[in-house]
Amino acid sequence: MIKVSIIGSGNVAQHLIAAFEESDDIEIVQVFARDKNSVGTLIEKERIVSDFNLLEDADLYILAISDKAIASVSKHLSFKNKLVAHTSGSIAINDLDAKNRKAVFYPLQTFSKHKAIDFNGIPICLESENAEDFQLLERVAKTIKGKVFAINSEQRKAVHVSAVFVNNFVNHMYEIGNDICDEYQIPFEILKPLIRETAEKVMVLSPSEAQTGPAKRKDATTIEAHLKMLQNPVQHQLYQLLTQSIQAHE
Amino acid sequence: MIKVSIIGSGNVAQHLIAAFEESDDIEIVQVFARDKNSVGTLIEKERIVSDFNLLEDADLYILAISDKAIASVSKHLSFKNKLVAHTSGSIAINDLDAKNRKAVFYPLQTFSKHKAIDFNGIPICLESENAEDFQLLERVAKTIKGKVFAINSEQRKAVHVSAVFVNNFVNHMYEIGNDICDEYQIPFEILKPLIRETAEKVMVLSPSEAQTGPAKRKDATTIEAHLKMLQNPVQHQLYQLLTQSIQAHE
Repeated sequence: MIKVSIIGSGNVAQHLIAAFEESDDIEIVQVFARDKNSVGTLIEKERIVSDFNLLEDADLYILAISDKAIASVSKHLSFKNKLVAHTSGSIAINDLDAKNRKAVFYPLQTFSKHKAIDFNGIPICLESENAEDFQLLERVAKTIKGKVFAINSEQRKAVHVSAVFVNNFVNHMYEIGNDICDEYQIPFEILKPLIRETAEKVMVLSPSEAQTGPAKRKDATTIEAHLKMLQNPVQHQLYQLLTQSIQAHE
Repeated sequence: MIKVSIIGSGNVAQHLIAAFEESDDIEIVQVFARDKNSVGTLIEKERIVSDFNLLEDADLYILAISDKAIASVSKHLSFKNKLVAHTSGSIAINDLDAKNRKAVFYPLQTFSKHKAIDFNGIPICLESENAEDFQLLERVAKTIKGKVFAINSEQRKAVHVSAVFVNNFVNHMYEIGNDICDEYQIPFEILKPLIRETAEKVMVLSPSEAQTGPAKRKDATTIEAHLKMLQNPVQHQLYQLLTQSIQAHE
């Protein structure tokens, strides 16, 4: 049994609590939450604390908190020489206070309150100061069926930027597609099979092999017609820049 | 039995031939292909012609050819008063020659030579000059299990622009994610579950509900760190413009 305590009560904390509670190999010792109600449906009240001094002994403390709170919370922990991991894509391992053994446990997925997440196959980027701690993190990741990647702090920042492109920016493309459909009384529904197939295609082809469309085939007539149609200045500018970027790409 | 002839031998033509050949309700009368070998594995040589004058009687002629060839090929057809549909997202119905009954049969999907397409559930945008022809197009679409949408020429252009955003531009975001991963020796594999989940999320949530990330939550620290990291000027500019566009979106 690996003893884990979770500090935090947001999206990531909640998904981790739910996953760990289902695992036979992990015991959640405690959850630290300022508002006990935030995680009250996931774990018994007796195991929720709101005072750092009440945190008991555990093999691993996971700080599933906002980026800006990581350094200061890690300083406020009252214990020493324990394994403490944060879950952020952007924060370096060395932002954690040196009194404990520093680590990172960064699950690369998009978490929403309204949609359940299965960790099965989800990449978990791990980083630690020593090999023994890495092995423990690896065991924890594997009990929830995550896929382990050894990723250092510089690489993790790159993973995070890439994630912004393939998640946030991709979703914004969906948002623009939705806006254009609305404008012409077309149901967004019509785009869904294409959205799904576009994602599925890069499971088997590289993105460069999968690239098609007027920009790629340098079809100036269609590009001109599309630009003429896009009256919204931001949409117009995005269409132009993305077309240029596709054409500049080898 | 609906008698259909297909004019063209590219990606869309090939996928339609394969789907129609599997349907019990459609008889492919002929395929017009300049190079008989291009479709020789899909249909017997006897049914392939390379001369418009050899096209026999059919209920529907589908022009699955490049946008720029549609007007001229529709002029060169030697018959009259037949139902002739093109398959393009960008070309208006009236670009077809008036000697035949004009129509559009536009399947909204991304077709690749290297990946088989199942038309099951795929939106097919139909347009015709009269209701009877629409019914025939609808029957044809339904025999290959397509999902029918009545879309006029102006709407179809909007669908096509939307498709450029949710397919071509989305795929380019994957391409940039891949480039960044390569630069930092991270396997592209790591992004795949996120790519898939990002698409799946908008099957159940609207894109606006699904939007997350540093731009959405106005996290200036992370945005600055990402921009500092993106040395590639095009990536840098895209990150900035897409961030602004997300923040300007209600």
